[in-house]
Amino acid sequence: MKGKLLKGFKDWLPQDLIPKNRLLNTIIEVYESYGFVPLETPALEYKATLLGYGEEASKQIYSFVDPENNEVGLRFDLTVPLSRVVSTYKELPKPFKRYQIQPVWRYDKPDPGRFREFTQCDADIVGTDSMDADTEIIAIMNEVLNKLNLKFKIRVNNRKILNGLIRYAGVPENLSYDVFRTIDKLDKQGLENVLLLLGGGREDQSGVFIKGLNLEKAQIAKIEKFLTLPAGSRDEVLSSVGELLEGIPEGEKGIKELEEINNNLNALGIKENVVFDLTLARGLDYYTGPIFEAILEDAPRFGSVMGGGRFDNLIEIFSGEHTPATGASIGVDRLLSAMKFLGKIKERKSVAEVLVTVMVPERKIDYFKVANQLRKAGIKTELYMGTEPSIAKQLKHADSTGIPIAVIIGPEEFERGEVSVKDLRQIEEATKKIKTREEWKKKRPGQVTIKQEELINFIKKLLNKEVNHV
Amino acid sequence: MKGKLLKGFKDWLPQDLIPKNRLLNTIIEVYESYGFVPLETPALEYKATLLGYGEEASKQIYSFVDPENNEVGLRFDLTVPLSRVVSTYKELPKPFKRYQIQPVWRYDKPDPGRFREFTQCDADIVGTDSMDADTEIIAIMNEVLNKLNLKFKIRVNNRKILNGLIRYAGVPENLSYDVFRTIDKLDKQGLENVLLLLGGGREDQSGVFIKGLNLEKAQIAKIEKFLTLPAGSRDEVLSSVGELLEGIPEGEKGIKELEEINNNLNALGIKENVVFDLTLARGLDYYTGPIFEAILEDAPRFGSVMGGGRFDNLIEIFSGEHTPATGASIGVDRLLSAMKFLGKIKERKSVAEVLVTVMVPERKIDYFKVANQLRKAGIKTELYMGTEPSIAKQLKHADSTGIPIAVIIGPEEFERGEVSVKDLRQIEEATKKIKTREEWKKKRPGQVTIKQEELINFIKKLLNKEVNHV
Repeated sequence: MKGKLLKGFKDWLPQDLIPKNRLLNTIIEVYESYGFVPLETPALEYKATLLGYGEEASKQIYSFVDPENNEVGLRFDLTVPLSRVVSTYKELPKPFKRYQIQPVWRYDKPDPGRFREFTQCDADIVGTDSMDADTEIIAIMNEVLNKLNLKFKIRVNNRKILNGLIRYAGVPENLSYDVFRTIDKLDKQGLENVLLLLGGGREDQSGVFIKGLNLEKAQIAKIEKFLTLPAGSRDEVLSSVGELLEGIPEGEKGIKELEEINNNLNALGIKENVVFDLTLARGLDYYTGPIFEAILEDAPRFGSVMGGGRFDNLIEIFSGEHTPATGASIGVDRLLSAMKFLGKIKERKSVAEVLVTVMVPERKIDYFKVANQLRKAGIKTELYMGTEPSIAKQLKHADSTGIPIAVIIGPEEFERGEVSVKDLRQIEEATKKIKTREEWKKKRPGQVTIKQEELINFIKKLLNKEVNHV
Repeated sequence: MKGKLLKGFKDWLPQDLIPKNRLLNTIIEVYESYGFVPLETPALEYKATLLGYGEEASKQIYSFVDPENNEVGLRFDLTVPLSRVVSTYKELPKPFKRYQIQPVWRYDKPDPGRFREFTQCDADIVGTDSMDADTEIIAIMNEVLNKLNLKFKIRVNNRKILNGLIRYAGVPENLSYDVFRTIDKLDKQGLENVLLLLGGGREDQSGVFIKGLNLEKAQIAKIEKFLTLPAGSRDEVLSSVGELLEGIPEGEKGIKELEEINNNLNALGIKENVVFDLTLARGLDYYTGPIFEAILEDAPRFGSVMGGGRFDNLIEIFSGEHTPATGASIGVDRLLSAMKFLGKIKERKSVAEVLVTVMVPERKIDYFKVANQLRKAGIKTELYMGTEPSIAKQLKHADSTGIPIAVIIGPEEFERGEVSVKDLRQIEEATKKIKTREEWKKKRPGQVTIKQEELINFIKKLLNKEVNHV
């Protein structure tokens, strides 16, 4: 096994990591523009902490006994550590708005594109039950996806409304979460199958029978009525569910919360990208109020790329005090896959903007100086360090790693105090148009010879960077 | 243990993590300006991989048997994963210049300021034995420390010169590493003690006797002569060691390598910050050529904040092919502690630049709008979400978290289309000068009431951001 990558894990090579880091920087920029502050916690926690919310997580956790005989495990989410931190450091400002971007580990069945270590990217607001907080969470989700130029919808619902539905349908309360988890399958399995699962059950594709919840027909009919309320504007949805759940206090409370969010979103100018969707349930038990999730309209098969909700009773398990909270998590790796699928990712193997080629190795010192000048001017510059003496092959290195510009200084250029600059992007364009070798020689597309002292500004112009006028 | 931080580990709260992230961004900027590309590898590796270079690491590794019955462990450095990656993905460009910033885990005795999980920040160039690569590694170390405004020296030596010393002193080769590790103690224990340790041994402070290497007197005298060669300019050091090791091929090869690095550094204009120091040995066995380490002149007790060297035989253990490499690692957490000690870290609990206070909660929608405007203009803005109705207390929140500017809109301001802006930094300055309440009222330092439409540009000016002239 020596030298082998562990099964279910992934090496992030430059061509994947460069766009991922760009994506993370966009997310951080948005988070910080709202005043969220960063937090990081250790990978290892006491197993008792990781299981603080229940034994269910146990199956997924990488756990072991450490050399000091503690039962420890690798974190499987960022919500448990948040809860631990909030209950440990009482001096943190309230509300505490933190973001956290760290890997988590889950012993799951690995799928193509699904790994046992993946990056979570959470933003939460702890210590307020104001709907302003939920609005901000929705707003940052909206802004991140806007900045990424994606077509998306953020679906919003409220667990209180779903609790109202349970009451309205006359379903026993202890079945609530089972009903929610069944409703959550609507997207993937369709209404008909969900209704079967609320009733006696159904056969899946491979012929295996899945037991249903055995609700009564009248109960199922009411749930169906709720689930098939017409979609529409946020106002329309609120009005139709308002009629249906009239007189059911929990439902009414949930509707009021969404009304407040609606007013806030209108003030922020956030319109059709955020919809109220009564069929959204989400899987986790711990949500207590508004819940949200984002899907990409052009890549629905990737499912929810961001999601979250309000969890007012969770942190209390650690802190012993009522500590309301709301937040969302971005599935960065999944979002990146979806963007790749949509052709929104430009894969590059290099971050460099310029390659300084080496034609006259004896004058290496001068190439060093040129590279240094460019770097000092804020231009990311790679000095060629391979073993190929041929400039054509050195240019191939630039081309294959996606470095857009190459600088060439041969004996003649040295003599005349000049440099040649090749814009490989222009050359690539030109190869599509120019057919003959003669024409190519005449036009020399994308290649210019200039004075050495013009180099910095010339390249800055090529890269659309601000030019320094001395 | 539920809810407790694991012993030896650290929570990175915002006031520590904000400057750490700023530091990391500076480092990344420098790395990328030289064309280094990012790489990330899984936290978990097969234990056989982690022990690829030898069983010695075993004591430090957090290892366990995973649910699939693999012996696995948490990575303890970033060089092992680099070796695995380079030998797995043959398609990577050569040379491969990668940086990697990830946590590593070591089961060490935890000290104050020393944790079992810490961030490593490595830059390596794989696949070339050219001294240009070593020069670049030294150059990026130099540039990072310059950008951080630190007073520092980068000490450079060469293991080949030290191998020459072994030959020159007539010490048996199998004792080389023991001699190197003893020389490495020079900084902390002084020459006298090092000479004792090369000989019969010495008593440490607590009276415990430490066995020496039992070298002969003549051997020790020669090592002493080498270690006490006069310090001086890089040229001077090269010339004096050149005389001493003349005719010893390995020593001469090492000196030639440093000569080449010296010429390169001169071309880059890197002068007194980089010195050749023949007493530098570094602890790790695997170095084969130039070695380097950086110390802060104003904070020497923090020891080496960056270090590295050439390791031409290491990757081969995984790849089976000769794969020369050189690189350096920045001890980010230690560097951060040193900068904190030097007062170079401005601790802030918030990233926000502006706090929008809420005086009239019924007009919340309008505060939302103002905050949104500021964010759209690129100003990091927190909208007050606490429960304090008093503006004075809301301002205290800004003050205690380090938000420099507060926006206040009361009923009168709303009526007149105005906003009040408080620059809390100016107020802090003024409190040192203004003595009486009357004077304060007259001058109203740091507080201005302006028209709403002037807000963005006014705040941008306060923050020294580029102002948009429409």
